[in-house]
Amino acid sequence: VTLSGKTILILGGGTIGAGWAACFAAAGARTLVCDPDPAAAGRLAEIQNKAHPVLQALGLPSEQDSAPEIIPGLADLNAPVDFVVEALPERMALKTAALAALEDVIPADTVIASSSSGLSVSDMQTGMRHPDRLVIGHPCNPPYLMPVVELVGGAATAPWALDRAAAIFQALGKRVLRLNRELPGHLVNRLQAALWREAVHLAAEGVASVGDIEAAITKGLGPRWAVVGPTEIFHLAGGPGGIAKFFDDLGDEVERWWESLGDPRLDSATRAILTEGMAASKPPEELAAHRDAMVPRVIAAADPDAYPLKSKPQ
Amino acid sequence: VTLSGKTILILGGGTIGAGWAACFAAAGARTLVCDPDPAAAGRLAEIQNKAHPVLQALGLPSEQDSAPEIIPGLADLNAPVDFVVEALPERMALKTAALAALEDVIPADTVIASSSSGLSVSDMQTGMRHPDRLVIGHPCNPPYLMPVVELVGGAATAPWALDRAAAIFQALGKRVLRLNRELPGHLVNRLQAALWREAVHLAAEGVASVGDIEAAITKGLGPRWAVVGPTEIFHLAGGPGGIAKFFDDLGDEVERWWESLGDPRLDSATRAILTEGMAASKPPEELAAHRDAMVPRVIAAADPDAYPLKSKPQ
Repeated sequence: VTLSGKTILILGGGTIGAGWAACFAAAGARTLVCDPDPAAAGRLAEIQNKAHPVLQALGLPSEQDSAPEIIPGLADLNAPVDFVVEALPERMALKTAALAALEDVIPADTVIASSSSGLSVSDMQTGMRHPDRLVIGHPCNPPYLMPVVELVGGAATAPWALDRAAAIFQALGKRVLRLNRELPGHLVNRLQAALWREAVHLAAEGVASVGDIEAAITKGLGPRWAVVGPTEIFHLAGGPGGIAKFFDDLGDEVERWWESLGDPRLDSATRAILTEGMAASKPPEELAAHRDAMVPRVIAAADPDAYPLKSKPQ
Repeated sequence: VTLSGKTILILGGGTIGAGWAACFAAAGARTLVCDPDPAAAGRLAEIQNKAHPVLQALGLPSEQDSAPEIIPGLADLNAPVDFVVEALPERMALKTAALAALEDVIPADTVIASSSSGLSVSDMQTGMRHPDRLVIGHPCNPPYLMPVVELVGGAATAPWALDRAAAIFQALGKRVLRLNRELPGHLVNRLQAALWREAVHLAAEGVASVGDIEAAITKGLGPRWAVVGPTEIFHLAGGPGGIAKFFDDLGDEVERWWESLGDPRLDSATRAILTEGMAASKPPEELAAHRDAMVPRVIAAADPDAYPLKSKPQ
């Protein structure tokens, strides 16, 4: 599958929709963003500006990329659509109404991928005429930077729709993570929440400063996890016997670690500790710019083939 | 503090001791490894060979580095020692006996940093004549690769000993993470255990393949965490209002995520799923070589100042 010559329709020109638009345009697709808000064009241009150097550092885009176009409504659609990304606000009624309107103007077999992080795709597809073509394709934030997409179907989703969506996301240079069933937070947000729970516990208990806890991850675990996964780390720790040896030697010990992990609440005292900790970090806008500047370098360093679409960076 | 001209004594020439030895030697210290095992010299040379290209990629070592030397016992010590690293097997009786013998041959104010990951430093120092100089300086594995050291004192540890150990580790190019009190697993192993618990839960429940769960981290969370910490990610997600805005918008939601996280056991069925998942990964030795080759690239990409000792890599 190549995206060149394809037309991608994105519903919603917010942060996520505009982020997706930058990716698809850079990969050579004709990209239409449907958003009635008069401010959408400005937001799209702003995110396009942030995304451009990131996509370039990741090995995209080539000369063929063209800017995404805004259309105010589905009535303005003037070309056949090959794939739809739904990136509207996280309100079920809004999404189901938009899906109903969408089904009036696209063929029955055009796949729709919802970016929803929290709503059930099974619920979302209940009222659809062709629910088999609806999938969740959840990006990691921001979509133009992070190379993973979580793909999951609902009760009525057909396997062909999942396969077609996977092929589109792969053509975009993404690593597709397939979930066998819906679960709150998919994979990435659950794993993130699990790590953060213990980080919050350690900060709330005063075991270390917020800055040192953050550094345990940015200087310790993060660089290693960019290269080897958490189970692989124990597999290699087992030596020639691998993970089986690790279980024999340390399986019981790991269960004891798990029992000792914290169970914090985000009460006002804990929020104050974390807020004060962040006062010693960079302001949010600077952090975002730092992330956009450095993460592509890390991705390229960890895996030179991460973005197989174009010639490799550096 | 510079390590050039200093003499470092390392008790124990196992994986951790030999890993430390490679770092100290590369930083210009005279490095003595005390180990009575006739196989220790071979192991030291083997780890030295693995460590050398890693230390070079990280910006160390210069021409001044010299190989660590083995001494079979403390009676063979023929020079004053500036700092001691205890890296013996994790058995309390063994460590306390070695500390007693050590105190006979070094001055009262020479700091001893134990690499223990699981034993209590307060217990370890109970029988010491000068317990104030004993600290835990726990490396992330392997010590020659990972740029963090967890530093914590016991009930009898003096602040000057912690400060002196911090200065030595900083001179080695390490980011020192200070713990205000002892806790099983310090920071890094607790955070690692917390993430892995959810990864195991997702695999055990069949939500996704082990490979896709690993990729959620290596392709998604890891590269981002190498640049911005988990609290910083929510700080920037809050936009101009930062973490305080994030708490207002999503604090309750996060607590609900936490409640939905899994609580797996490493029972035989779960071990089988993970073991089978690892069969699709690289063998342990290849994974270790891959880690050693790629993590220095990631560290340099994420933070060009990570190793401030020498001229920067590339």
